[in-house]
Amino acid sequence: MSVLIVGSTALDSIKTPQRENPRLLGGSASHAAVAASFFSPVQLIGVVGDDFPKKYLQLYRRHKIDLTGLQLMPGKTFHWSGEYELNMNNRRTLLTELGVFEKFTPHLPDSHRAAPFVLLANIAPALQHHVLDQMSRPKFIAADTMDLWLNIALDDLLKLLPRVDCFVLNDSEAHQLTREENVFAAIKKIHRLGPKYVIIKKGSHGSILSSPAGFFICPAYPLHHVCDPTGAGDSFIGGLMGFLAASRGPVERNFRRAMVYGSVVASFCCEGFGLTRTAKIKRADIERRVKEVELLVRF
Amino acid sequence: MSVLIVGSTALDSIKTPQRENPRLLGGSASHAAVAASFFSPVQLIGVVGDDFPKKYLQLYRRHKIDLTGLQLMPGKTFHWSGEYELNMNNRRTLLTELGVFEKFTPHLPDSHRAAPFVLLANIAPALQHHVLDQMSRPKFIAADTMDLWLNIALDDLLKLLPRVDCFVLNDSEAHQLTREENVFAAIKKIHRLGPKYVIIKKGSHGSILSSPAGFFICPAYPLHHVCDPTGAGDSFIGGLMGFLAASRGPVERNFRRAMVYGSVVASFCCEGFGLTRTAKIKRADIERRVKEVELLVRF
Repeated sequence: MSVLIVGSTALDSIKTPQRENPRLLGGSASHAAVAASFFSPVQLIGVVGDDFPKKYLQLYRRHKIDLTGLQLMPGKTFHWSGEYELNMNNRRTLLTELGVFEKFTPHLPDSHRAAPFVLLANIAPALQHHVLDQMSRPKFIAADTMDLWLNIALDDLLKLLPRVDCFVLNDSEAHQLTREENVFAAIKKIHRLGPKYVIIKKGSHGSILSSPAGFFICPAYPLHHVCDPTGAGDSFIGGLMGFLAASRGPVERNFRRAMVYGSVVASFCCEGFGLTRTAKIKRADIERRVKEVELLVRF
Repeated sequence: MSVLIVGSTALDSIKTPQRENPRLLGGSASHAAVAASFFSPVQLIGVVGDDFPKKYLQLYRRHKIDLTGLQLMPGKTFHWSGEYELNMNNRRTLLTELGVFEKFTPHLPDSHRAAPFVLLANIAPALQHHVLDQMSRPKFIAADTMDLWLNIALDDLLKLLPRVDCFVLNDSEAHQLTREENVFAAIKKIHRLGPKYVIIKKGSHGSILSSPAGFFICPAYPLHHVCDPTGAGDSFIGGLMGFLAASRGPVERNFRRAMVYGSVVASFCCEGFGLTRTAKIKRADIERRVKEVELLVRF
């Protein structure tokens, strides 16, 4: 089955202690769509300006991503620039130029309204709502977010949560949202806000799923060197949703394995700047790491 | 088989945002010994002053801990006092009174010199050396440490590492020791210093084992409320060594399971002040949580 993904499609300029990389393909929807494409057909909803490099459209197409819902508007593509510290955890935004993104209203082509799996990747909650409003009874909806929306669009976000099956956020955001220091206490509060599935991302410490079947502790694939973690979270949830959409049987039964697949795709994402490494891997590379993860947790 | 454990035997006064608890039974050897005692016979090496409460000696005895090697010296028992912040991760030492600990030289009774499993719990590396010097070919030696020894006794510690099979430290200490931001890069450097088994403790994020059989990602048991994490690391390595000593077959084959047992004992430790919770559990309580952990990581 296919996954509809809405989010940002951007150009990222990423500075790390090692080097600078201007105008890479980025944005939550780009990362999530490429990650999901390893498993299932993807319909991308987003907007780019007339400066958007053709090679990035080609990259989407090589991953068989349906671009019917990608709007091309006159003006500049959303441009984000950030800098990582040596430990690769702390990140500082240097520049945010919204460009055409400022006037973006996601519009779903008729062919997309019945998509069974929907990923509301990180984007303003109002736009996430707007996408859901145009859909006819999806089978499974996941939403991601970021601290910015907790700060400036909390009401919209709180109204979104009862509308989604799965909500994914990182540990610091979970703390910000619930004021709970303990992550399991935070998860309990987040369930009360609506979602049946709650995922807490903890970067190199892996992630935690809380679902009707209990907790699942999902390890991160061991990386000896992190090149650029930008988009790792988007790759994780994108890979997860792609794998879910491609799997037969009830979502609940496939969910844990889907998280492991998502986490493995995220590990590749961290090994290159932007999407450079992810765009080069094959399904077999993913399978190899998933097998390694199986051995990593066996006791 | 039995485990010989050397480390500190102390009185801990612990302040948390909730309450204050004066003069609890504490110290690395106390926590490790009680944790190990659920699985195998324990021989404790340590020192206490004449103010050491009888009830704590009774607690050791209830856990069938061999106290032949516990020295009773005139003077005050080592007293540590610390305060935790709301997040239960940051801890501040308020007071350290060494008392009889200042003149402590671990002396092994003849009956203890052939102990097959040795845990050098957190204590000055010079004393850890001194214990090894008195032993005759132990089957397996593990050593713990703390940031203090990295700061003031690094040379002694570096000389200890080739003498031990397993070295356990937390992630910030691994970073301090190796100057590597990446934990897997740090592990690689630590192996080069001697130990075949390296364990990195990450608190609520679990722990990582690196051994000849590869990496093992060991989850922490999910706790919805942490009462007092003091001694959790000592309980972890104590439980681990106790389980190893009690298990048949090669160490390598039992090591992962031993980590899970250690981590479960540590989870109980966090649920009460000092050893209050740990001292009340039974082996069956541990088995129940180990079964839960099996389900937590299955995918």
